[in-house]
Amino acid sequence: MARVVVDVMLKPEILDPQGQAVQRALPRLGFKGITDVRQGKRFELEVEEPVDDAALARINELAETFLANTVIEDFTVKVESQEAGK
Amino acid sequence: MARVVVDVMLKPEILDPQGQAVQRALPRLGFKGITDVRQGKRFELEVEEPVDDAALARINELAETFLANTVIEDFTVKVESQEAGK
Amino acid sequence: MARVVVDVMLKPEILDPQGQAVQRALPRLGFKGITDVRQGKRFELEVEEPVDDAALARINELAETFLANTVIEDFTVKVESQEAGK
Amino acid sequence: MARVVVDVMLKPEILDPQGQAVQRALPRLGFKGITDVRQGKRFELEVEEPVDDAALARINELAETFLANTVIEDFTVKVESQEAGK
Repeated sequence: MARVVVDVMLKPEILDPQGQAVQRALPRLGFKGITDVRQGKRFELEVEEPVDDAALARINELAETFLANTVIEDFTVKVESQEAGK
Repeated sequence: MARVVVDVMLKPEILDPQGQAVQRALPRLGFKGITDVRQGKRFELEVEEPVDDAALARINELAETFLANTVIEDFTVKVESQEAGK
Repeated sequence: MARVVVDVMLKPEILDPQGQAVQRALPRLGFKGITDVRQGKRFELEVEEPVDDAALARINELAETFLANTVIEDFTVKVESQEAGK
Repeated sequence: MARVVVDVMLKPEILDPQGQAVQRALPRLGFKGITDVRQGKRFELEVEEPVDDAALARINELAETFLANTVIEDFTVKVESQEAGK
């Protein structure tokens, strides 16, 4: 079993209005020194088998097709934990 | 400047119906061996000053109050990058 | 062809921390008199056939199973437009 | 008191990959005849005072600035309920 994490964020050049609203609210809420807030999505996938290069390639394809819209979003794929198999 | 990441996920005991719909769609889309999909939120905060313990405590408080609903969600705070200051 | 809209909102008794952050940001952004902000999800479904009672019952079941988590969320189903058939 | 609803959807020409994943999962889950699924956001605002034209103009401005990213999203503003005042 392995856990693979796919993070999906709006591309840097695309405005994130809600993140901006939160960022501008922060000083009033007593939080200073935070100059930018961006909100994205995090997907946690549980994968049955060890995540080898072929599995990782398929998960990249999955992320590109169904989790992110690559016109407006960037994504990263990370293996977070992987139990040692034999 | 530092980047702090706050990940917010539904608690494990709370059902994630959309994640489940995606998970059940996967075999049909040609992706096998993925037994669970959960979708959460990822916030990226840019912090002006070095993130010391006091700053981290404030960011934890921010996450607990305005980014996560701790009745139904768990969150984690991580410093992802921190430029060396002087 | 018909369009069916499923609105999914957190139940009133469940706190919406991000909505609250936005609401508390508003006066500072120059918007007064807004006492509450809640953020939910809106799904627009395009349905091939006329939406009769049986179709509506299936869409309710779909919403209950895969679009909303009824432990923490309420949903409503509305037919927004329906072209006259023959 | 009035309730104003702001619906925010990706523009029609922008792909919605998660909506698509759900749509493609549906036949397998036993739901047929749904040709498109798009997921957007719904904001419910509680407004203290009667929503006259000036208030509506301000809420449109709010939606345009902080709730929607008008490069990639469309939004609509609707007054859903308004108690009669004196």
